[in-house]
Amino acid sequence: MADKRRSAKNLRSGCPINLAVEVFGDRWSLVILRDMMFGNRRHFRELLILSDEGIASNILADRLKSLQAHGLVTRAADPSHKQKAIYSLTEMAIELVPIFAHIGAWGRRYLPVSEELSIRAQLLEEGGPAMWSQFMDELRVAHLGLDMPNDRPSVAEWLQAAYLEKLARNTAAKATHEA
Amino acid sequence: MADKRRSAKNLRSGCPINLAVEVFGDRWSLVILRDMMFGNRRHFRELLILSDEGIASNILADRLKSLQAHGLVTRAADPSHKQKAIYSLTEMAIELVPIFAHIGAWGRRYLPVSEELSIRAQLLEEGGPAMWSQFMDELRVAHLGLDMPNDRPSVAEWLQAAYLEKLARNTAAKATHEA
Repeated sequence: MADKRRSAKNLRSGCPINLAVEVFGDRWSLVILRDMMFGNRRHFRELLILSDEGIASNILADRLKSLQAHGLVTRAADPSHKQKAIYSLTEMAIELVPIFAHIGAWGRRYLPVSEELSIRAQLLEEGGPAMWSQFMDELRVAHLGLDMPNDRPSVAEWLQAAYLEKLARNTAAKATHEA
Repeated sequence: MADKRRSAKNLRSGCPINLAVEVFGDRWSLVILRDMMFGNRRHFRELLILSDEGIASNILADRLKSLQAHGLVTRAADPSHKQKAIYSLTEMAIELVPIFAHIGAWGRRYLPVSEELSIRAQLLEEGGPAMWSQFMDELRVAHLGLDMPNDRPSVAEWLQAAYLEKLARNTAAKATHEA
């Protein structure tokens, strides 16, 4: 039975790590989820134009379809621009936040990260599980439309502000250096 | 400078998540690391023959080389069979254990996992960070040759025993069912 289900879906084994990698572990899917999660990018053009990795339009379209097929992303008409589609994370995708936090922490330790693109990972690592959980609640409000009590400052805004500050400081330093 | 280093290595951006995915996020590298970590497979033939996902020999060879190039795996002559190479995890790879534990827990929640291939993920999830940390120490002894105090029962043996028990029980149940 399990074998049939797997072969029907073309999955390689019933190991949770293998299945997870088949769902989000290609070189682009995690990067798209990251941009939706931490960059609040919800439209195709934002995901394309603002991509730090320069994703190609056909790859973005293909991976968004695959993420929808696997239940990580939904697509709907944007209530504020009826012609545009808006993409949302599902609960399944929102629960990847702790995995992103751990991968970010590991990457900072071992890989040649840039300062402005790693400040958010640093803050997430320092904030720990309590902050991840608050951030997941914010994503549930923004992506699932859940109504949640919000008497705390927003983690998303705080991460974004820290990123923009690093970016501005490094851009200014570079301009001074080049002048 | 950072830009130069990245383009030299053909990396796409300095984001820790992107860099991490470039290092281990292809469909096979994580599965090989998993087999070395949780299945104690250290030789090419074990990794090939025992693979639950049926990895092809050329892909295994290619990914082992890539994992070595990225500093996650080392290769040496096996002290007990001089003709054979033995592969070891580095500290960098051993520190992926919490990420594997989180991915396994997420996979169990959302994906069609099989019972025998998910029992280890279940035990890791239930054991939490204290158990991951003990398991990482065991890997440091086995793969890095570190000498560590060992007055506790082995997590690796416990995980392996639980897996073999599930496997035996399901094989027996299947045989009864088919008889």
